[in-house]
Amino acid sequence: MIHPTAIIGEGARLGSGVKIGAYTIIHDNVMIGDNTEIGSHCEIGIPSTLSDGSPLIIGKSSLIRSHSIFYAGSSFGDRLSTGHRVTVRELTRAGEAFQIGTLGDIQGHCTIGDYVKFHSNVHIGQHSVIGNYVWIFPYVVLTNDPHPPSMVMMGVTIEDFVAIATMSIVLPGVTVRHGALVGAHSSVNRDVAADTVVAGSPAKYICDTSAIKLKDGSGERAYPWRRHFHRGYPDDVVAEWLAEFSASSVI
Amino acid sequence: MIHPTAIIGEGARLGSGVKIGAYTIIHDNVMIGDNTEIGSHCEIGIPSTLSDGSPLIIGKSSLIRSHSIFYAGSSFGDRLSTGHRVTVRELTRAGEAFQIGTLGDIQGHCTIGDYVKFHSNVHIGQHSVIGNYVWIFPYVVLTNDPHPPSMVMMGVTIEDFVAIATMSIVLPGVTVRHGALVGAHSSVNRDVAADTVVAGSPAKYICDTSAIKLKDGSGERAYPWRRHFHRGYPDDVVAEWLAEFSASSVI
Amino acid sequence: MIHPTAIIGEGARLGSGVKIGAYTIIHDNVMIGDNTEIGSHCEIGIPSTLSDGSPLIIGKSSLIRSHSIFYAGSSFGDRLSTGHRVTVRELTRAGEAFQIGTLGDIQGHCTIGDYVKFHSNVHIGQHSVIGNYVWIFPYVVLTNDPHPPSMVMMGVTIEDFVAIATMSIVLPGVTVRHGALVGAHSSVNRDVAADTVVAGSPAKYICDTSAIKLKDGSGERAYPWRRHFHRGYPDDVVAEWLAEFSASSVI
Repeated sequence: MIHPTAIIGEGARLGSGVKIGAYTIIHDNVMIGDNTEIGSHCEIGIPSTLSDGSPLIIGKSSLIRSHSIFYAGSSFGDRLSTGHRVTVRELTRAGEAFQIGTLGDIQGHCTIGDYVKFHSNVHIGQHSVIGNYVWIFPYVVLTNDPHPPSMVMMGVTIEDFVAIATMSIVLPGVTVRHGALVGAHSSVNRDVAADTVVAGSPAKYICDTSAIKLKDGSGERAYPWRRHFHRGYPDDVVAEWLAEFSASSVI
Repeated sequence: MIHPTAIIGEGARLGSGVKIGAYTIIHDNVMIGDNTEIGSHCEIGIPSTLSDGSPLIIGKSSLIRSHSIFYAGSSFGDRLSTGHRVTVRELTRAGEAFQIGTLGDIQGHCTIGDYVKFHSNVHIGQHSVIGNYVWIFPYVVLTNDPHPPSMVMMGVTIEDFVAIATMSIVLPGVTVRHGALVGAHSSVNRDVAADTVVAGSPAKYICDTSAIKLKDGSGERAYPWRRHFHRGYPDDVVAEWLAEFSASSVI
Repeated sequence: MIHPTAIIGEGARLGSGVKIGAYTIIHDNVMIGDNTEIGSHCEIGIPSTLSDGSPLIIGKSSLIRSHSIFYAGSSFGDRLSTGHRVTVRELTRAGEAFQIGTLGDIQGHCTIGDYVKFHSNVHIGQHSVIGNYVWIFPYVVLTNDPHPPSMVMMGVTIEDFVAIATMSIVLPGVTVRHGALVGAHSSVNRDVAADTVVAGSPAKYICDTSAIKLKDGSGERAYPWRRHFHRGYPDDVVAEWLAEFSASSVI
């Protein structure tokens, strides 16, 4: 299961059933959970003087695709799944089933909840705080410096169920609240209220998310997206979501 | 011609004169045409359960630069040329002389014509349909989900001779018609008429492409660009373009 | 110090104390200064017919992180520092202590001064001219073709101490003057005056940089940033900056 060309540090602790691809390097200070697969050409657990000496922890049943790079000192729950050539720096903590698309760049010192999904090529600045069930789409940047360059770091906060569409940025210190949608190609310079849509540069309130209909001919509401979009979420979570809407439809 | 460190699957069919660089992996379900060169550190023909079992087909006389990744189940005509670290997922079909710049990310299920050129770092969403002689510039994203996340997929259509300038996005279901130009840093949310320029966010009509003059002191028209820009196109195609404008100038 | 899997061209000239990581390729026409470290999976000194036959020169005490790609024919002063998977094409000349973030793409034929810092994922078009102490933030693109595609190349000029914030583009031929700040998500289509802030698409004058206060509770001016931001600059340079402001505060 370990390709003969893989270079595995003596201190690395690999669970049972772990697969490591060709030409991949696993450094010493790494713990990889059972049944996790790491593709070719990766570099996993790079030591960093910016970290705190803690290991890189990758949960069970994860998949890290080829050409990816992880630093020591971050930890990921079970079922991490990445695209190719992602980069994750030190001291990030993520929950279960975190998904990072190809080319994603997580700068470190971030806190990320469960079932968060990043599409390709996002840039997550240091000190970002991201809740659960968040979606971030391609070329989105979460920033942190209000007057670059400076020593002031104001990470952004993204609450549960938020979706941030393609090529948008969130400016330092901003909070995007529960269930909000940031339209594509937007620049968000102040807090976004829960369950609202903002768009533009600077982003302005467009409507409540409840006003958007699915373009599938059903006439149903597109948001909260957990009403209709369930791919990749566990059955018990989906059952809870469905119960929520079943109950609310009575009212 | 095959570097001794390259790992070649037993089922891979390599044409004559094929070169494979160091530390590159060629999986089994791959057909590579004669005289094609693949650089170092690539992973070519990754199997995918999202594909249909068909092989990855790379045409003759192609050049895939280092650190690139192609999945099984896509096909490319002759003279494919890529920059470094491109990623191409499954079930994309491209014509001849397709050019993909460094960091390009083609999500799969796309249809791409002949002589299409992508500059660096474009993101082409699933179900995009792209004609012939199209140019797409850096950090352009072609999207497909009208209310993310959802199961609805509305790919964009880009017709022949269109140019989409840097850091623009095309929203789901939009068609950009023959010869149009999308200005830089634009967000295109509705169809663009042939031979017009749109720009802004949301993009608005600026002028006809015929109104733009070349900034080379000649005073000539900059569009259709095939009047003056011929680098990399075959002689017979260029001759046809020149004949077109020679004829029209009589009128 | 040279990993046994590294492939070193016979013509490559490596200084004393040079380290080369696993699976890295060093081509022939390369000169690497003393005590420089190159990470794993790199390809350094790729020959190019677009170059002039000159070697790739990397100064002393540099650090090139893993998966990076440099072409022959560019030169870098001492203490070059890169993130992962950067790409630098031919005929670029950079001064001392140049820093390129992860995923940076320098297209070649650029002139870059001393102590220039690129954050992650910037795209620097051919013929860009960049002064000293410049900052360029993620997803910024410097362009060069005023009517793409064409043979006309109008590189941009970025003067000393300029900062260009995230996801902005600078259009062909534009000059951004000494100490100016380009706000995030902007499109700069004409020259920017020294020590001013521009933002928007197209970018417009917002204020003088002197009007922006530090958000650290001090009430001090945020610009010129060299008043307060000194991390990574040598002591003698910082002393000169401090003397400048000490003198001016007397007046």
